Amino acid sequence: MNKLLYGVAYYDEYMPYERLETDIQMMKEAGINVVRIAESTWSTHEPQNGVFDFTSVNRVLDAMYKAGIHVIVGTPTYAVPTWMVKEHPEVLAVTKNGQGKYGARQIMDITNPTYLFYAERIIRKLMENVKDHPAIIGYQIDNETKHYDTSGPNVQQRFIKYLKDKFETTDALNKEFGLAYWSNDVHAWEDMPSTVGTINGSFGAEFSKFQRKLVDDFLAWQVDIVKEYRKEGQFITQNFDFEWRGYSFGVQPNVNHFTASDPFDMTGVDIYHPTQEDLTGIEISFGGDVARSTKQQNYYVLETEAQAFSHWTPFPGQLRLQAFSHVASGANMVAYWHWHSIHNSFETYWKGLLSHDLQSNPVYNEAKTIGADFSRLSSKIMNLKKKNKTAILVSNESLTGLNWFKFKYDSELNYNDIVRLIYDELYKLNVEVDILHPGSENFEDYSLIIVPCLYVAPDELLDRLNQYVEHGGHAIFTFKSGFANEHVKVRTTSQPGIIEKACGVNYQMFVEPKNVKLAGNTYEVEEDKNRVHTWMELLTPTTAETLATYDHPAWGDYAAITGNEYGKGYATYIGCIVSSEMMSGILTQALKRASIWGEEQEVNFPLVIKSGINDEGKTIKYVFNYSFELQEIESPFSQSIDLLSNSIYQKGEPLTIKPWDFKILEMK
Amino acid sequence: MNKLLYGVAYYDEYMPYERLETDIQMMKEAGINVVRIAESTWSTHEPQNGVFDFTSVNRVLDAMYKAGIHVIVGTPTYAVPTWMVKEHPEVLAVTKNGQGKYGARQIMDITNPTYLFYAERIIRKLMENVKDHPAIIGYQIDNETKHYDTSGPNVQQRFIKYLKDKFETTDALNKEFGLAYWSNDVHAWEDMPSTVGTINGSFGAEFSKFQRKLVDDFLAWQVDIVKEYRKEGQFITQNFDFEWRGYSFGVQPNVNHFTASDPFDMTGVDIYHPTQEDLTGIEISFGGDVARSTKQQNYYVLETEAQAFSHWTPFPGQLRLQAFSHVASGANMVAYWHWHSIHNSFETYWKGLLSHDLQSNPVYNEAKTIGADFSRLSSKIMNLKKKNKTAILVSNESLTGLNWFKFKYDSELNYNDIVRLIYDELYKLNVEVDILHPGSENFEDYSLIIVPCLYVAPDELLDRLNQYVEHGGHAIFTFKSGFANEHVKVRTTSQPGIIEKACGVNYQMFVEPKNVKLAGNTYEVEEDKNRVHTWMELLTPTTAETLATYDHPAWGDYAAITGNEYGKGYATYIGCIVSSEMMSGILTQALKRASIWGEEQEVNFPLVIKSGINDEGKTIKYVFNYSFELQEIESPFSQSIDLLSNSIYQKGEPLTIKPWDFKILEMK
Amino acid sequence: MNKLLYGVAYYDEYMPYERLETDIQMMKEAGINVVRIAESTWSTHEPQNGVFDFTSVNRVLDAMYKAGIHVIVGTPTYAVPTWMVKEHPEVLAVTKNGQGKYGARQIMDITNPTYLFYAERIIRKLMENVKDHPAIIGYQIDNETKHYDTSGPNVQQRFIKYLKDKFETTDALNKEFGLAYWSNDVHAWEDMPSTVGTINGSFGAEFSKFQRKLVDDFLAWQVDIVKEYRKEGQFITQNFDFEWRGYSFGVQPNVNHFTASDPFDMTGVDIYHPTQEDLTGIEISFGGDVARSTKQQNYYVLETEAQAFSHWTPFPGQLRLQAFSHVASGANMVAYWHWHSIHNSFETYWKGLLSHDLQSNPVYNEAKTIGADFSRLSSKIMNLKKKNKTAILVSNESLTGLNWFKFKYDSELNYNDIVRLIYDELYKLNVEVDILHPGSENFEDYSLIIVPCLYVAPDELLDRLNQYVEHGGHAIFTFKSGFANEHVKVRTTSQPGIIEKACGVNYQMFVEPKNVKLAGNTYEVEEDKNRVHTWMELLTPTTAETLATYDHPAWGDYAAITGNEYGKGYATYIGCIVSSEMMSGILTQALKRASIWGEEQEVNFPLVIKSGINDEGKTIKYVFNYSFELQEIESPFSQSIDLLSNSIYQKGEPLTIKPWDFKILEMK
Repeated sequence: MNKLLYGVAYYDEYMPYERLETDIQMMKEAGINVVRIAESTWSTHEPQNGVFDFTSVNRVLDAMYKAGIHVIVGTPTYAVPTWMVKEHPEVLAVTKNGQGKYGARQIMDITNPTYLFYAERIIRKLMENVKDHPAIIGYQIDNETKHYDTSGPNVQQRFIKYLKDKFETTDALNKEFGLAYWSNDVHAWEDMPSTVGTINGSFGAEFSKFQRKLVDDFLAWQVDIVKEYRKEGQFITQNFDFEWRGYSFGVQPNVNHFTASDPFDMTGVDIYHPTQEDLTGIEISFGGDVARSTKQQNYYVLETEAQAFSHWTPFPGQLRLQAFSHVASGANMVAYWHWHSIHNSFETYWKGLLSHDLQSNPVYNEAKTIGADFSRLSSKIMNLKKKNKTAILVSNESLTGLNWFKFKYDSELNYNDIVRLIYDELYKLNVEVDILHPGSENFEDYSLIIVPCLYVAPDELLDRLNQYVEHGGHAIFTFKSGFANEHVKVRTTSQPGIIEKACGVNYQMFVEPKNVKLAGNTYEVEEDKNRVHTWMELLTPTTAETLATYDHPAWGDYAAITGNEYGKGYATYIGCIVSSEMMSGILTQALKRASIWGEEQEVNFPLVIKSGINDEGKTIKYVFNYSFELQEIESPFSQSIDLLSNSIYQKGEPLTIKPWDFKILEMK
Repeated sequence: MNKLLYGVAYYDEYMPYERLETDIQMMKEAGINVVRIAESTWSTHEPQNGVFDFTSVNRVLDAMYKAGIHVIVGTPTYAVPTWMVKEHPEVLAVTKNGQGKYGARQIMDITNPTYLFYAERIIRKLMENVKDHPAIIGYQIDNETKHYDTSGPNVQQRFIKYLKDKFETTDALNKEFGLAYWSNDVHAWEDMPSTVGTINGSFGAEFSKFQRKLVDDFLAWQVDIVKEYRKEGQFITQNFDFEWRGYSFGVQPNVNHFTASDPFDMTGVDIYHPTQEDLTGIEISFGGDVARSTKQQNYYVLETEAQAFSHWTPFPGQLRLQAFSHVASGANMVAYWHWHSIHNSFETYWKGLLSHDLQSNPVYNEAKTIGADFSRLSSKIMNLKKKNKTAILVSNESLTGLNWFKFKYDSELNYNDIVRLIYDELYKLNVEVDILHPGSENFEDYSLIIVPCLYVAPDELLDRLNQYVEHGGHAIFTFKSGFANEHVKVRTTSQPGIIEKACGVNYQMFVEPKNVKLAGNTYEVEEDKNRVHTWMELLTPTTAETLATYDHPAWGDYAAITGNEYGKGYATYIGCIVSSEMMSGILTQALKRASIWGEEQEVNFPLVIKSGINDEGKTIKYVFNYSFELQEIESPFSQSIDLLSNSIYQKGEPLTIKPWDFKILEMK
Repeated sequence: MNKLLYGVAYYDEYMPYERLETDIQMMKEAGINVVRIAESTWSTHEPQNGVFDFTSVNRVLDAMYKAGIHVIVGTPTYAVPTWMVKEHPEVLAVTKNGQGKYGARQIMDITNPTYLFYAERIIRKLMENVKDHPAIIGYQIDNETKHYDTSGPNVQQRFIKYLKDKFETTDALNKEFGLAYWSNDVHAWEDMPSTVGTINGSFGAEFSKFQRKLVDDFLAWQVDIVKEYRKEGQFITQNFDFEWRGYSFGVQPNVNHFTASDPFDMTGVDIYHPTQEDLTGIEISFGGDVARSTKQQNYYVLETEAQAFSHWTPFPGQLRLQAFSHVASGANMVAYWHWHSIHNSFETYWKGLLSHDLQSNPVYNEAKTIGADFSRLSSKIMNLKKKNKTAILVSNESLTGLNWFKFKYDSELNYNDIVRLIYDELYKLNVEVDILHPGSENFEDYSLIIVPCLYVAPDELLDRLNQYVEHGGHAIFTFKSGFANEHVKVRTTSQPGIIEKACGVNYQMFVEPKNVKLAGNTYEVEEDKNRVHTWMELLTPTTAETLATYDHPAWGDYAAITGNEYGKGYATYIGCIVSSEMMSGILTQALKRASIWGEEQEVNFPLVIKSGINDEGKTIKYVFNYSFELQEIESPFSQSIDLLSNSIYQKGEPLTIKPWDFKILEMK
């Protein structure tokens, strides 16, 4: 599409009374130019086994087309109808908690052939029904697809075959997974136990990887079906979601977004985040960076919050701030879950642009201004391209590995906490990043790659990281990186294993810090922020320089953080978990050394700067104020024009941003 | 009975050695004039299937009769014998956790015909055995009956028929419950899923209502059987209990006391409450007000604590204080769970009047004084009638609705917290209340009706509340009232829906308060008590006056509390959860406006005043001191005589109440 | 063995590459003279049903023998192979959570005949294979054996027979367990319900006792098999473990160590404990005292931590301190779990002497000094005998009883907390103790017996305790002692029942203390340590003197702690839970009265003194410094020589102990 899309999820099926024309009129007034339909309502479209009814789809398509609003049609397969489960209870996934119960969405076994038979049929019937409709700009496959921990006997059976293909002999498997421990080894494939009760992290993690592959396969299968029908110019997308902690927190454990996005034309995501006093924009930025990086192109935000819950209803100004933050990260669509609030069932309090009264309201009124600005500025601000010099390497395998092997058995911190510890500080320093993954082949595009907790990694990946440094790259590795191979088998070398080459440091011991700080307060933080917690490695530099040591009566001789010149590059190794403030200091040091530090880094959160190059080749700079306080800085940019007000700013001139407001500056 | 009853539960079956004559002697000395027997000991009376043995019942009846102690006989149906479950494991209720295991009481499916067959047989056998015994003054049906979340296939089957009767078509059901959401709708009754896994609050709440109806039906069925045998003058009662939070906290979620009490002659309840430093009398008062209101008559406290646990053993004086508090609320019986402490099993530490040594002790000795005073003052203090001007409207449906739709997904506050937030402050202001329910037809009897969180309500009820105000009533509605209809379907009007008429205020948005207070500290509380928490609605008055606004940078223009003249009456609307101290201020304001405020409201907790009119038409005033400190006030009453000491007090004369002590004043 | 053993668990099976010769070389350098093998690796030795392969056992035996390292061979029965569970899923224990899942160790039903058949076969095959090997000094039966809560139908069936044998009639059972309560009584053995759902503490506790007996039986059965093969001079041991709170905390609930150790020649235990800043040596001492007391002889520490987790990696010096602490308690072996760290599976982070790189490291280097000193000092410090005057009486039955009847329903304190409250203070006062149990017959060996929470006890035991005092013994009883009989039936006398005779005190009431302290701060502790919490009994002395009373407005007249001269002895009764500091005061008072107090009690923790008599009849005194601070005292000992440095100390001379260091003094 050659314009910014501003959208809503729309459910004619959920409406308490006839609203279609009224809704469309109100959408038009708000500048809504796309709606997403159909993906949750299989039972409406197939009320009984083999009985199809696409009335609601068709009437919405027709009405939207008439109104000039585009439509994305979703396949309805992520919520199964009652009749199916009544006829075939076996479609419900068997997980470690046993077989599921009917009620929620996302409860089926995505490998069950009965489910797949019905899913294929409803997709084909739907596609046959809609395929020629001119309102449709694209299709969404399923929704927030994950594996739902399906792990019943049929899945275990497949997993055995997967292991056979991979290891050929049980002896090879026993050796690599260390199954001899506690008599877990198998000497005949027939003896293979279910993974459900396993205490072997290699076995368990391999199963998780296998489960993520099931998601890849399921999505690719659906894409292939839909491709048979879609017309030229129509895209196929998914709505990926992130690790959920009551909001979109981090890397998704149950899907590998980098492989799962392969068959799609366009990556779509949903991003939900704290708001009101807690709005920082970090999740908007993080989710956007992941989405943009999956296919190294722009992306769609298929769902984000409008009013949502009592704790997410935005302050005046925040809805605008949020929408333009998505676009500033490279989104070409911002769509709300959902148009209207629902009057029954689970998401009654997950409110849409319209409240339950379905009338105009302050949030809807603010949306109108967004729609108008999106429309007016579309050609200037869509298709924003990034040229980031910094990247973070994330790994689903390491996330899983660290769930098996926590910092401490009762540790609440996990992989995503460390990713976010780093990401958040970069965000606050206005350093934009791309996200790399173990399959990425473009390490050399970056001046600095940050590698948090790469606990699980094949030799090949670590060798490539060494090479990256050797060839002049800057890298930051944290604790636990390089520890285990791709099968979560701990390396038998001294640690951090292969990357010792680049890092010039090793260790044999790691301890739990109690009242430990960095000696001399290396990063000059407030006294109570000079805190090492949860995990510390006792580092011994070989060729590295010591950047920080521990302040501790027993461990004071060991290094905490080191830096090493290797080939033409430089590798920093962080041996312990530090406070946010100290992490900021470590990153600052590395950014400066990697020549990424600039004037924009001197501007501090709550002011957030985002950049990109538009279709005209012009650089666009956003400056967001994520606070209740008016912010004033001297413009760090060469001459620029604010696309919202047409004001022109010279470098050094005062730039004033109102609370929860922003500027969109086009560089001359 | 024409006297105050002072009683104990008595279990000859549990006694470690022959005690009957000794026990009766000690009971007589304590003034115990009624015992409750038989309701937990089915296995004693029917040791094997079809083998009956009422020896223990008969000997206790005979001995009590001889001693002039009355007996209440309970049907033993709430604890099933081992032989039954061994022969018919299917009598155990299937709940969302699967089928129960034998051990505890209250584990059977109260709709299971096998259970009902045996239950009917033991009831009839028992009744045939005892029906002519002159010791018996009444019968108790079962005990603390609830539905035990029975929700197995047979119960689901019945529920479908219930839904068919109610909605006739699946389409009507789908529409009203919003089942289209996430493909939950049914297009054939055969497809109806179990409610056990449902995520639809309307479906789930309707099932809870249906489960409460099962309790009504079960109790009515037993009453009908017992009525075939009971003699004239013998009452039939139940022992209802309350929401349990380690003590009797609030409205019972699993029984509708107002409908379930219908077939009974007399409402009986059990009330357990914190004591020692934490004794306030609030639960005694609350439970009593509910019990008295079910049938608008006096009631029996069939169980309350004697020594109970280490944390409930009363300080000297408290047992007396508690007993007379029950009577002051309108109880005509105060009975202890239980006479003697038990030497084995689950309630070993739920101690009775006698400790495990079965000897006289300080608590028992205090009971003696109660028995003596009850006997001496019976005609003066029993049958106390109330003429309360204030009532609180409670709703089981709203309680259930708010469990489905909490203030926030992880909110710990629920319906009863709000009921108690109001009740407790009224109590401390010495405002006595009646309890209304959606079926009450006597709204007009009250000057002020307080309506906490009436989240689920049919139009008809809300219309009646509007009328009540229009005709001159005063009402206080809190947040969330009027939000959803009787099927937990949110109203599609602006909120608070129908009661906007009386309240003159509406809102579309609600948010979670963080650091919010009322602007200007409207109710003049200590600074740290000026706190709005958990829930706030952004109110816009239409015809109402604003009583308070929020102190918040984004929401400061909205009203927090409003008042509205409507017809001849006045409606206060509270849009947010406030501290206890602020609630007291709001109530004070409304009580004054409704002309309920009087001198007794100037007397503050820990002094508690309770009033009533006795059979002679005399007004009795109790003044309780719920504290360790001696309290002295000027008597707010016209000339009165203390029935305990015969002292006479003129208005304004000093009235001194010792710690944990009280006066019973008869007004001249 | 006539030397101190210094050992490791060694798993050739788990090694990532061929290491045997290298490992043995490194062991020799560290003075390791014993390895423990085979006990977890059934699947290696029987890779398929009936296929046996003892290659790894044999090659390790041969290589160790060649190197002069002894071997303990374990029966591999505590971790079942995959093929067995695949063929016979029924070997997995059914617990209250249903049937287990394959994965972990210790998941089988130790009464299942299929399991027993295979277990016997693998034991016999293993024994036949190794029995003549000269490297073997002993055998370990299974590992950390417990009952794993096996409670399926077959176990219930046996339990019924056990009850029949014990009670003969169901009436006797009903009476003793109080089963009439809530209709739980049985009138035919066929009606006996499973214990899994029971709410009857007597029934439940009897089942726990029965389950512990299953462990006794299982171990004795294995011992009998192994005895058929073992040669003269070879010992048979078990590796008992303790109540686990992330470390070895207290009395093991699921095994009665005193009966289970009967068939063994030698008691072996594993002891894990906090270290780093949290190292106190208390668990080393407690576990050692239990182990030593089981058979009143020296014992083996078959497992303790080397590097273990990040939170247990020892500070420099601590590994030595720990090793000699074990020996000072009477251990003749100190062995590590384990030699090398594992590269996969559950215990990857439970690190051994070698880290994952299998190279020399600081902890291993410290082990070398231990091995050398053990070897050099063996004849002086092994076989240490104790002549303790103080003993603590522990009771598995009381532990179970207090789990059924907690101080309060939500109390977090349990039996072991009270045991440790006492034990820890004795430890800090340098009072060494033996551990008695209900079957002990040597009460008279002690001057002071401390009896914490002896909640469950037969008359006979209490009578013996009375006699002990009458004959001149000193005893301290705490609250709850004597309360219930051996079937957890509360005594019907006034409390504390039978021991009232010795204690001269009784009570009928007990309450939960809120803001209660001892009047007059009896034990002169800091104000905030004068705290009575969780439980208080309202004591009335009969013949006793009051040692302390409560400071409380209602309970101030009752005694809190009393002392009573009875016969020639003296009994202290503690009626409430007090702070550690107050407990120390109470113990000091009693120790002085019992003439146990001496100069060594004036030396305070973190200095810990341990004593014993060696084979030469010399007294050995250890002085440990459990702190980061250098400690200096005047030697309280007559002339002594430090066996490590050969320095000689006269009484009163300064004795300086470095941080985490110690002296071994031989008295002249």
